[in-house]
Amino acid sequence: MQVSLIPVATAANPDVLHETTTIVFDVLRATSTIVTALASGYRRVYPVADAGTALVMAHKHGFVPAGERGGDKIAGFPHGNSPLEFIGGPNVGISNDAQKCNVLILTTTNGTKAIRWAESAYKVFTGSLLNARAVAQAVLREGLDVSLVCAGTGGRFSLEDTLGAGFVFMEIMKHLNGEDSSRLAAGMAVDDLPIAAYELARFYYHDPLSGLMAGRHGQRLLRRGLEDDLRWCAQLNRYDIAPVLSGEFITTGNDYTKQ
Amino acid sequence: MQVSLIPVATAANPDVLHETTTIVFDVLRATSTIVTALASGYRRVYPVADAGTALVMAHKHGFVPAGERGGDKIAGFPHGNSPLEFIGGPNVGISNDAQKCNVLILTTTNGTKAIRWAESAYKVFTGSLLNARAVAQAVLREGLDVSLVCAGTGGRFSLEDTLGAGFVFMEIMKHLNGEDSSRLAAGMAVDDLPIAAYELARFYYHDPLSGLMAGRHGQRLLRRGLEDDLRWCAQLNRYDIAPVLSGEFITTGNDYTKQ
Repeated sequence: MQVSLIPVATAANPDVLHETTTIVFDVLRATSTIVTALASGYRRVYPVADAGTALVMAHKHGFVPAGERGGDKIAGFPHGNSPLEFIGGPNVGISNDAQKCNVLILTTTNGTKAIRWAESAYKVFTGSLLNARAVAQAVLREGLDVSLVCAGTGGRFSLEDTLGAGFVFMEIMKHLNGEDSSRLAAGMAVDDLPIAAYELARFYYHDPLSGLMAGRHGQRLLRRGLEDDLRWCAQLNRYDIAPVLSGEFITTGNDYTKQ
Repeated sequence: MQVSLIPVATAANPDVLHETTTIVFDVLRATSTIVTALASGYRRVYPVADAGTALVMAHKHGFVPAGERGGDKIAGFPHGNSPLEFIGGPNVGISNDAQKCNVLILTTTNGTKAIRWAESAYKVFTGSLLNARAVAQAVLREGLDVSLVCAGTGGRFSLEDTLGAGFVFMEIMKHLNGEDSSRLAAGMAVDDLPIAAYELARFYYHDPLSGLMAGRHGQRLLRRGLEDDLRWCAQLNRYDIAPVLSGEFITTGNDYTKQ
């Protein structure tokens, strides 16, 4: 099994994902928000690259639009991109149709674009610190080569996405080596980039929050008073859910969750 | 001051180096070998991308050819790319012209190509663990933005080059912050990639050899019985020399060395 890491999704050619199981990371905050929403009662999340499209879809179907641009909530959107907004689950009281309120339309600066970019993969999961172990186990079940895809920030390398990929790679190694994550399992081929990500994960293992605070984007969110978002996203393995892209939307993928 | 890190030299556009002071890293082993040779009595090292050109130059001028391809010594070359071959200094006994024996023509798979690729920078230094502090101080003296350029291995991300860049970034931070390397100095702008490299350096600070052993290329050298090369290259700040490209060749750059 080969494990590759793509440091900035949209800067690469998506052909590299061909016949691999892919995990997309936008740890601050899209993929952390997706797993939080799915764990809190939302049934589907539509990742949509364009804000206008998101609003049209939401109005047409009665779904809930959410998203940000440059970290700010989009004008006219009831929700931004903070996972904390979705912990309470869908507000079914505001509509007579609970089915529709269960559906989120999410558009973000980097994350939803990266998920759409990854569509050519055999299967696309979304990963974060919150569900590192769950997605590691999900991709191992597929038995294919694995692509860890970091969304990056504005087309540039992102520390927190690489850290997320490192934690998942650590969980893959633990699973294959029985808690000993310090050596590669037999038959595993990796570049140096997953190894560097893994070493970052080891470095921040006992304090993932420091890792999320160390990058530029984390610093920007801190300056906006969003430390609670970082604290939320820094919880390792809170959820046993591997969100998976199924056509146009992301679900818990019943095969992959024990919740 | 902005500090950038280019993870794989030849995969990027060299225009990004414009008006920056640049440090090129091929830690295993070209840039470790260059500083070792200069510290041991060689006066100049010509980095030459092509092996044929290297041999022609060596014969024409009586210089000493050295180099490798894929880690193996090149046929017809008296020296490979191990720093240990040059510790003894130039063998002036084999020639009547000590001046010529003092000059090395070096051609390697990744390192010399990366040095040539970086030529458009304002000034090009070569860095390694052996001289991390020296090159950090040298680039700070220039007062320009800094580009940390990793040679990479076969066009791919290299753990040991990134680690070398991280150690230099650590020394830059120490210098600016007075031994406190844990925060950015005022006016310093960095992407997440130098920060990730810096965290790698912190992780391996007390055991740099483990870092050199963790990457693919280090593993390959170990399999060839070259552990002593890795041990040599893992010595942090052994030399107070900042090799600098001056036209076609690299010298100690008298301005930058106290040896």
